Amino acid sequence: MPDRIITLTTDFGTGSPYVAAMKGAILTIHPHARIVDITHAVPPQDIRQGALVLARVTRAFPPETIHVAVVDPGVGTQRRIVWAAIAGQFYIAPDNGLLSGLARREPPTTMRSIANPAHWPPEASTTFHGRDIMAPVAARLSLGLAPESLGPPLTELVQLSWPEATTLAQRIEGEVVSIDSFGNLITNITSDMLDGAPTDESVRIRCDDHETQGIFKAYADQPEMTLIAVVGSSGELELAVVGDSAKLMLGVAVGTKVTVEW
Amino acid sequence: MPDRIITLTTDFGTGSPYVAAMKGAILTIHPHARIVDITHAVPPQDIRQGALVLARVTRAFPPETIHVAVVDPGVGTQRRIVWAAIAGQFYIAPDNGLLSGLARREPPTTMRSIANPAHWPPEASTTFHGRDIMAPVAARLSLGLAPESLGPPLTELVQLSWPEATTLAQRIEGEVVSIDSFGNLITNITSDMLDGAPTDESVRIRCDDHETQGIFKAYADQPEMTLIAVVGSSGELELAVVGDSAKLMLGVAVGTKVTVEW
Amino acid sequence: MPDRIITLTTDFGTGSPYVAAMKGAILTIHPHARIVDITHAVPPQDIRQGALVLARVTRAFPPETIHVAVVDPGVGTQRRIVWAAIAGQFYIAPDNGLLSGLARREPPTTMRSIANPAHWPPEASTTFHGRDIMAPVAARLSLGLAPESLGPPLTELVQLSWPEATTLAQRIEGEVVSIDSFGNLITNITSDMLDGAPTDESVRIRCDDHETQGIFKAYADQPEMTLIAVVGSSGELELAVVGDSAKLMLGVAVGTKVTVEW
Repeated sequence: MPDRIITLTTDFGTGSPYVAAMKGAILTIHPHARIVDITHAVPPQDIRQGALVLARVTRAFPPETIHVAVVDPGVGTQRRIVWAAIAGQFYIAPDNGLLSGLARREPPTTMRSIANPAHWPPEASTTFHGRDIMAPVAARLSLGLAPESLGPPLTELVQLSWPEATTLAQRIEGEVVSIDSFGNLITNITSDMLDGAPTDESVRIRCDDHETQGIFKAYADQPEMTLIAVVGSSGELELAVVGDSAKLMLGVAVGTKVTVEW
Repeated sequence: MPDRIITLTTDFGTGSPYVAAMKGAILTIHPHARIVDITHAVPPQDIRQGALVLARVTRAFPPETIHVAVVDPGVGTQRRIVWAAIAGQFYIAPDNGLLSGLARREPPTTMRSIANPAHWPPEASTTFHGRDIMAPVAARLSLGLAPESLGPPLTELVQLSWPEATTLAQRIEGEVVSIDSFGNLITNITSDMLDGAPTDESVRIRCDDHETQGIFKAYADQPEMTLIAVVGSSGELELAVVGDSAKLMLGVAVGTKVTVEW
Repeated sequence: MPDRIITLTTDFGTGSPYVAAMKGAILTIHPHARIVDITHAVPPQDIRQGALVLARVTRAFPPETIHVAVVDPGVGTQRRIVWAAIAGQFYIAPDNGLLSGLARREPPTTMRSIANPAHWPPEASTTFHGRDIMAPVAARLSLGLAPESLGPPLTELVQLSWPEATTLAQRIEGEVVSIDSFGNLITNITSDMLDGAPTDESVRIRCDDHETQGIFKAYADQPEMTLIAVVGSSGELELAVVGDSAKLMLGVAVGTKVTVEW
């Protein structure tokens, strides 16, 4: 009998009892479910940051893990809830762009609209589908429910528009797409794009009115308090301040332009 | 052999190592215990908010789940520690009102004073009964220890006084009792009390000097930045600001009066 | 077959997806791994606070638990990664002092340099050894991998210098070494050092320009808003303000001198 891991990614806030409510709903159906928190610190209703987290982290899980994602400002309206198989992993989420960070890297192999109310309690609320629909569906899928029974097939997901970095001759133009808990600025400039570029001091990386030279392997390859560029653990160019927070030192936010030139 | 789930609800703060200390104590007795965090973000020593969380979330867990709750400013004094069975769930908590949010909805079916030191280590501290008494007792109960062995039966729990909403002709007067991580204002006005009321624009909801009309089904049923009233997922009337935080926009706190009129 | 619990202690920040990335790496190798979070709220790159958490909490876990600790500003540089057996528990950490809070209490019985790349994926990053080296090694050790295969034996760990309290005639001079989520000030003055001292009002405890008399058993043994001294649950003298935060009320920080006199 299958017994798939279930992960949870939400904007409920760390420590929110709403997360526990989802876990209670899962465990009521599958008392031995293995549940892993991805994060509950997605900024409230920030679908884009939720989509980035899913795209970066979930592929590291065992095949057929069931990832439930709830950043759902439209809960209770006509927006659909979807099940999707992407790169060997399963996802349950509102169809509001939350899966589009994953889907633009690798298209889903199958998708279903979650529409068959036989799989959730009749008294489902209109304000908390994470607990009342997505959690019970995840629990049943973890026990082997066939996705075909969830609802009709889908052919398209709602897509967010994604800022793409531009590759020119000896120049790449991108931007900060997220900021981690160390204050490191993570860009949409990937290691692939940097393939032709040098890594020594002939390469200049600019962010707002700050500049640094060279692309390093480790955060500690420069002295403390230096702005440094590193290809981070998800294969994206990052700007960091050694021993401190680039976010605070540079005072920049998501969306700030970053250029690499050589 | 029973193997009941154990949940933890505390005011230790998210990320507090005190939570891990409780888990270590449980796992030392029952290495395969299934432990679920409800929340550790109850405001420090705020028994009332802890009681509200327990009342809202724990009933969603499988029957006979053991819920350990530690908001315990009187630790080491003469306050009792209790075990209680309420609505098919088991609770372990200091007897300081923490269970009274649950108990006023449905009286406990059995209660015991946790008084038999055979169930915890002799070197128990006077400052951390969560780790030294409640965690080992929960671990033993999860493995099937009979509650009768915990200590003498109890007939009464310490009660907090609870602000009750008042129902008048075409008017309900209540207040904000908690605020969630989205900044939604959750009141003590329940869906039952609203049974006779209309939901269209003829109903006016007032909070401090703010007013909104109508009771909606979904947070997104009004345009962004609008104050909206919704019956939330625990069956209580909530005030929300679409796409933003009602707490920040209205600048209100727990205790603010809310009236519904039609 | 062994199936040891794995714990995680990091400075990634509560809710950081980096934590989930480590869990994914562990579960990919050992899908039924039991993973417990100690804390992810160690202040960024604060090796000393990480070392204190490990020393206080990990010994409460079942024997042979595998504790993975990642506070690793030098990731990708020549710093070693170590496996150590201390007091019957196993540890995996960068060799930067993170284990020295444990090791100064009880010397490690065996240590290995984690150097054999057969145990982690060839594409390991240079910026996230927690995910790419420590997590897979922990997963394999939890399944019974012999520590001998990790790499060559070690005889010494990097040590932090630790501020020691000084015991004089009828006087102990120590300092605040950490502050918990209640704002309690935890000192390096241990219950052992206090063995000869009285606990009544003839003992005076001074912190910065604040003073209190007596050493109490419970936080609530004095009226609200009183500064009180208590021997806390890890056996260290603490200063607390009853019903409030000593940190905020006294405005002190880690490093502030504390004296006990009688």
